[in-house]
Amino acid sequence: MLVDFNRYLFFPKKKSLIIKDIIIHLGSIIKNKSLNFDLILNDISSSKNPKNNSIIFFNEYQNLNFDNYKKSLFITSNQETYNSLKNFNKIFVKNLDDSYTKIINNFISHDDDLSYKDEFELINNSYISKYSNIHNSSNIANNCVIGRGVKIGKNCIIKNNVILKNSIVGDNVIICDNSTIGCSGFGFNLKNLGSKNIIPQIGIVYIEDNVHIGSNCTIDRGRIDNTYLGKNSVIDNMVHIAHNVSIGCNACIAAQTGISGSTVIGDNFISGGQSGFAGHLIIGDNVIVAAKSGVTKNIQSKSTVAGFPATDINQWKKQIIKNRKNGYK
Amino acid sequence: MLVDFNRYLFFPKKKSLIIKDIIIHLGSIIKNKSLNFDLILNDISSSKNPKNNSIIFFNEYQNLNFDNYKKSLFITSNQETYNSLKNFNKIFVKNLDDSYTKIINNFISHDDDLSYKDEFELINNSYISKYSNIHNSSNIANNCVIGRGVKIGKNCIIKNNVILKNSIVGDNVIICDNSTIGCSGFGFNLKNLGSKNIIPQIGIVYIEDNVHIGSNCTIDRGRIDNTYLGKNSVIDNMVHIAHNVSIGCNACIAAQTGISGSTVIGDNFISGGQSGFAGHLIIGDNVIVAAKSGVTKNIQSKSTVAGFPATDINQWKKQIIKNRKNGYK
Amino acid sequence: MLVDFNRYLFFPKKKSLIIKDIIIHLGSIIKNKSLNFDLILNDISSSKNPKNNSIIFFNEYQNLNFDNYKKSLFITSNQETYNSLKNFNKIFVKNLDDSYTKIINNFISHDDDLSYKDEFELINNSYISKYSNIHNSSNIANNCVIGRGVKIGKNCIIKNNVILKNSIVGDNVIICDNSTIGCSGFGFNLKNLGSKNIIPQIGIVYIEDNVHIGSNCTIDRGRIDNTYLGKNSVIDNMVHIAHNVSIGCNACIAAQTGISGSTVIGDNFISGGQSGFAGHLIIGDNVIVAAKSGVTKNIQSKSTVAGFPATDINQWKKQIIKNRKNGYK
Repeated sequence: MLVDFNRYLFFPKKKSLIIKDIIIHLGSIIKNKSLNFDLILNDISSSKNPKNNSIIFFNEYQNLNFDNYKKSLFITSNQETYNSLKNFNKIFVKNLDDSYTKIINNFISHDDDLSYKDEFELINNSYISKYSNIHNSSNIANNCVIGRGVKIGKNCIIKNNVILKNSIVGDNVIICDNSTIGCSGFGFNLKNLGSKNIIPQIGIVYIEDNVHIGSNCTIDRGRIDNTYLGKNSVIDNMVHIAHNVSIGCNACIAAQTGISGSTVIGDNFISGGQSGFAGHLIIGDNVIVAAKSGVTKNIQSKSTVAGFPATDINQWKKQIIKNRKNGYK
Repeated sequence: MLVDFNRYLFFPKKKSLIIKDIIIHLGSIIKNKSLNFDLILNDISSSKNPKNNSIIFFNEYQNLNFDNYKKSLFITSNQETYNSLKNFNKIFVKNLDDSYTKIINNFISHDDDLSYKDEFELINNSYISKYSNIHNSSNIANNCVIGRGVKIGKNCIIKNNVILKNSIVGDNVIICDNSTIGCSGFGFNLKNLGSKNIIPQIGIVYIEDNVHIGSNCTIDRGRIDNTYLGKNSVIDNMVHIAHNVSIGCNACIAAQTGISGSTVIGDNFISGGQSGFAGHLIIGDNVIVAAKSGVTKNIQSKSTVAGFPATDINQWKKQIIKNRKNGYK
Repeated sequence: MLVDFNRYLFFPKKKSLIIKDIIIHLGSIIKNKSLNFDLILNDISSSKNPKNNSIIFFNEYQNLNFDNYKKSLFITSNQETYNSLKNFNKIFVKNLDDSYTKIINNFISHDDDLSYKDEFELINNSYISKYSNIHNSSNIANNCVIGRGVKIGKNCIIKNNVILKNSIVGDNVIICDNSTIGCSGFGFNLKNLGSKNIIPQIGIVYIEDNVHIGSNCTIDRGRIDNTYLGKNSVIDNMVHIAHNVSIGCNACIAAQTGISGSTVIGDNFISGGQSGFAGHLIIGDNVIVAAKSGVTKNIQSKSTVAGFPATDINQWKKQIIKNRKNGYK
């Protein structure tokens, strides 16, 4: 689920996003003379969630009503996409991830960058950012860090040593001890690794009402958009949820499960412990995943799967029995 | 292993547990006129570990000497159990978990509830509850939180950023950095999820002498009774132990293992890394579980198992070889 | 990769390592009259990385130029090794691990021992050891603990609630929230478990430039030598790296992976999430390990493996297909 948020509450702008400055910074050769060089853009957006007045990092061609994005700048490394964008502000780049990294690091502050600043007050034994917004009915225990831009709704319980940053949290949410919410996703370019080349993460985590998150969990913020946890979902200890994952309402996720980036999960999801999910999957509603499964493909609604690679649970049970018999022969 | 403890050192009572108030709070229709409406109960207990003068949440019929529980209140959703309890204080409810949740949230404070209070002093860089009891020979490092009711024996080392609550700790215990001990178990009703409906956890963790717990572990407190770690057990990093688990003495549990709720493990247990255990299992003495196993069934003493679902290790090895051969055909 | 470091910056000596005192402490019967009883040794070393002027715990016979170790003391429980060491200072012991434990606990302070001391100052919301050395261009966030001896290079970002001890960190390193670096390895003698008998860990973690470590990770210090992370390596959340592991440059390790002790991995390593590695393996360069693999054997350079036990990925895929077909029969 994608939500709207004001990115600059979390990640302050270093300077204005003016097309001509972006071009200079990228060192691009401009073939496209119709570019509006003086246009100031408000934000960064992804091809999944494009916005007007933003830089749209756009590789996959989508059936958009492009007229809504006349005041945007499309950056793409896909020649076909580039060509199809007639009469738009557009730049062709060799490597989209590298250009993204270059632009973000130059124009926007984020917390994998030394320039990032926050200011804290020690309130009831926790460090609370001056730029956070916490409802006074919510309790925050000891040794927590609540970062800039964070909003916490009513009647929340944030237990001890929790790091909560780059997040918007609804009402009645409980986050247990030693969990890290809103940390950096694992964004990298395999050909150019290292801390100086990581792909900046400037999205957030959005947590709906009544969510319960266990101890020692990690939930990464989105890369550009948001990671999402639906209403009434309950998450056990040591669960890892990567950037841009979206989980519907009423999920129940047992301990040590890991969900890779951009996987989208429907409502009423149940996952046993130590399950793993590949990235960019689509998991329907009312799906049950048995413990220790490794999910590598999309799952249709109302399915129950098990094993690795995960398959229909009855099929999996048959295989187990067959293999056992074979082993005895 | 079940131990005795005074629950109210950890979880203060909000009000007295008087049978008539409980009935009013549950909104029960009372068919049982012999109820002693004015009886004040001392505690809550489970069918596994029933106590006199307590509310016994009792679904599974057990061959008890019921005469020891004349001054208790049995609450059950099992009609047969209800009928068999002649001349006892008893209430029939539709859903035992929901009734438990209702009663606990009304009568007892716990740390998933906004009403829960603790008071801390900053001592040597850690927040120590005024209601804890720490032997002065023990060392507590920085940024720890030691919660109310916690007792720590002699010569313990509690390293940095450890959360230790709802726990009784013996002598010579070492708990390493960033671990969370005594956190909430994952108790929920699948038909009624969300933080407001979680099943309250009001048990503790009991850690015997000479236990060593690694870094970034989570050990959940019992639901009503206690989670238990036996003497001389050593636990590696990132191990998750769920509520009501009991582990005998001399266990050796490698990193990233997860043990689900209520599983009972004997002495001299060895588990390789990344193993997982289903809940409510009984694992004998001298059991070895190979790394990355998924244990779904009880294991007899002196067994060595491997694979998922875990089976005898020699059998497992045969299967692997057979499957490889099949793959080549 | 083994590095040189001054152990006593991290683990202060309790008393001088004089051969006669070591003998008295071990209660050894000395058959070897040529021992230089008054020799003072500087350090402890392993058979993998023996040093002159040190106690060399030496069980596996190696083709050393022993002449470089004339001023060392060899301690061994291997009779053949003992006999082969002519004209050296040497002691035969029954159990090498037990003797090591006895000696270290008596002569060297380490942080699983109550005698270990460190002194901290609260600087910008974190506890920084007076005996650490942090470049002033590096940022340390809130609630961190930086232990004695730690050296941090230029332009590092240490995020919130990080424990960093017993470590040397290069330039541009990022360590994310709630991670524990330099914690104790899981060293034990299965016949003699318990916190009082754990095998002391007095090595360090050495982190090269540009490494990025995710949130809620644990990286154990070496037992005698060092754990090593090569330049430009990036590590996701909840990854566990055990003592004496060495990882080359440009590694990319996804979430919830666990690497057991003493495994040595080459350059350009890629591991999918939830993979596990047995200890003491040798993994070549340019190796790819698919998610959820269980690696039990050495892997040659340029291999891609999958499954458990991990095998060539194409072979693994064939097996999966065959097994599925068998299941349907």
